[in-house]
Amino acid sequence: MFSSLEIIKEISITSPGKILLLVFDGLGGLPDPRTGKTELETAKTPNLDRLAARGICGLTVPVAPGITPGSAPGHLALFGYDPVTFSIGRGVLEAVGIDFDLQPGDVAARGNFCTVDEAGLITDRRAGRVSTEKSTELCHLLDGQTIDGVKIIVSPVREHRFIAVFRGEGLVPGVSDSDPSRMGVTPAPVVALKKQAEKLASVASRFVAQAKGILAQHHPANMILLRGFSRHPHLPTMGEIYKLKPAVIAGYPMYRGLAKLVGMEVLPTGPAIEDEIATLKQNYNNYDFFFLHVKQSDSAGEDGDFDRKVKIFEQVDSALPELLKLEPDVIMVAGDHSTPAMLRGHSWHPVPFLLCSKWCRPDRVTEFSESACITGGLGIFPAVQIMPLAMANALKLIKFGA
Amino acid sequence: MFSSLEIIKEISITSPGKILLLVFDGLGGLPDPRTGKTELETAKTPNLDRLAARGICGLTVPVAPGITPGSAPGHLALFGYDPVTFSIGRGVLEAVGIDFDLQPGDVAARGNFCTVDEAGLITDRRAGRVSTEKSTELCHLLDGQTIDGVKIIVSPVREHRFIAVFRGEGLVPGVSDSDPSRMGVTPAPVVALKKQAEKLASVASRFVAQAKGILAQHHPANMILLRGFSRHPHLPTMGEIYKLKPAVIAGYPMYRGLAKLVGMEVLPTGPAIEDEIATLKQNYNNYDFFFLHVKQSDSAGEDGDFDRKVKIFEQVDSALPELLKLEPDVIMVAGDHSTPAMLRGHSWHPVPFLLCSKWCRPDRVTEFSESACITGGLGIFPAVQIMPLAMANALKLIKFGA
Repeated sequence: MFSSLEIIKEISITSPGKILLLVFDGLGGLPDPRTGKTELETAKTPNLDRLAARGICGLTVPVAPGITPGSAPGHLALFGYDPVTFSIGRGVLEAVGIDFDLQPGDVAARGNFCTVDEAGLITDRRAGRVSTEKSTELCHLLDGQTIDGVKIIVSPVREHRFIAVFRGEGLVPGVSDSDPSRMGVTPAPVVALKKQAEKLASVASRFVAQAKGILAQHHPANMILLRGFSRHPHLPTMGEIYKLKPAVIAGYPMYRGLAKLVGMEVLPTGPAIEDEIATLKQNYNNYDFFFLHVKQSDSAGEDGDFDRKVKIFEQVDSALPELLKLEPDVIMVAGDHSTPAMLRGHSWHPVPFLLCSKWCRPDRVTEFSESACITGGLGIFPAVQIMPLAMANALKLIKFGA
Repeated sequence: MFSSLEIIKEISITSPGKILLLVFDGLGGLPDPRTGKTELETAKTPNLDRLAARGICGLTVPVAPGITPGSAPGHLALFGYDPVTFSIGRGVLEAVGIDFDLQPGDVAARGNFCTVDEAGLITDRRAGRVSTEKSTELCHLLDGQTIDGVKIIVSPVREHRFIAVFRGEGLVPGVSDSDPSRMGVTPAPVVALKKQAEKLASVASRFVAQAKGILAQHHPANMILLRGFSRHPHLPTMGEIYKLKPAVIAGYPMYRGLAKLVGMEVLPTGPAIEDEIATLKQNYNNYDFFFLHVKQSDSAGEDGDFDRKVKIFEQVDSALPELLKLEPDVIMVAGDHSTPAMLRGHSWHPVPFLLCSKWCRPDRVTEFSESACITGGLGIFPAVQIMPLAMANALKLIKFGA
């Protein structure tokens, strides 16, 4: 376990205080050149602004300056887990994203159906984005084989994406990807990167070879590519570290899966912010930490839809008073990373953050935005530090050292 | 030794420049809800404000965001020692606090006289805060035993508090506390947490058993609790690292003790700021680093006395011109942690900091306060970095690297 988590584990105590973490996926943005304002600065968010005025603000750096995080590191940091120390493989991430129940010892790989030509060279890494329906059929063809005592479970994800889970004795991750991440070349062989991974490499290679045969007549999905062979990371839970009883309220499965990896209980919910707040109300007495996830801000950013991202902020802002009626002892509004509509994807830019509690030391920020948060009392700081701050503000940490 | 100290040790040089570190214990605060102003913001401190205007300001984070430090980690950080790497046990801290001369190999534990009922269950962890006088008597009864060749020295501290120092061959710390930190249970056995600590565990257990017999008729102080078994940490000295000749001017013994642990010489002084400044003047030519400690701000905070904390700041501020007449090359005004009167105890909040020297790069801060320091040129930064900054500003560090 990372040493600073060890310290938190030693000094954390249970107390009645409740912590609410509201995460806007892809919260941060970039200014529209016509107005000079980011999505968040463009949005009319009187409730967030009032909360910023009452609270303390800053900008979080998800992983490190200049580093654009994926969803997993972005969220792990918000939960207090150093995203470099605790890495989650692509295979595991896809598996938890479809609520696949990974067993101890399982190795999961992310798969793509792809197209190869007669010479075996990749002509399309996504097999023309084959439909989920077709992909599901093809997964059935590949599913359930046993090679060298290892069962291979193949489950569709969406479109060309699937997972292959290798279940059996003696499987150790540490093998190369068969996905070369480019076209015009043959799929790469899966090779062991260390001695103990040889069995997995051998089984995976034979699985790929058999898949080639099985799919031969299914052009454009006539081959597969595997990457991110990984095992369940078995992270220390938030219960162990913080002595919290945490719950996740998220409309999208991947975020529920990520939260489950750190021991949160999943509360079934609809995807709209109103649904999530209703779920929160129903379960408010049973937990002392809630992670509420708003996916739509990231999707709008990824689509390059500046105005839609603005609207999401305004919608959630309107719903905020209902949420604040619960009077959580600590409320944090955060993002896992920036997703500027101008960039149509995740980015490295620091993310606006606010924390409001009876014991926060309010700063002079009166507006929740990128430019206002620069002057906040928390400064520009690693996202991994928000959980210790929340714990302190909920009076859930005792003194460190004599 | 922590790696950044290794670097400083390599590049530090002796020069005539003098560094003055003025520490307000528990400097940082929280706003009074009626005024929105902290203790420091409420205080009229024209001299500190002028110094802030001439200097460069920031907020220091004593250990890490959200972590509330004890006195030892708070001060070690100010002296440049990473407080997580260099930890000081509770037993040692109490021992240095009463100027007890710990020998190499000694293991010190912090003791409490406590009350147990007929079933042996703890009914009061502090024996009704037995008087120092009575406690001193009881310590004499326990003092001077030899068990398995180990001499046990028992010295009173104050009220129910004492230290037990175990002196003999083969004693290694790494034993559990007998103090369960709660009532209604029996004292815990002292057990070895590692093989080498078995001798200490055995001797300490027998000492506790004998103490129970000796104290049986001394209700309410009819039992003892021990915790924080620890050895002198043997820190590298400030002389070794910084090539400084450092001195401490502190009215309270614990801070003199902490300073001695890093090799400062103790200058006898009265507890008032005027006494401390007089001591400074008398000794100004003989040292090149001075740590002046103001305890009263912390005590006022711990007592929840907002107004008294305000007055302490104003008092010290009035005395400041006298101190500035000495024209130290570098003056720093810092705190080991925050002690908001609103919280009646140490807290995690960052601490106002200012550094003034001919070579600092002044920022636009013109007021020494929590909210003003947020915008300072040093930003929000780890307290452990103030010593390298002071050394640089005193032109006592040569270039790093080719």
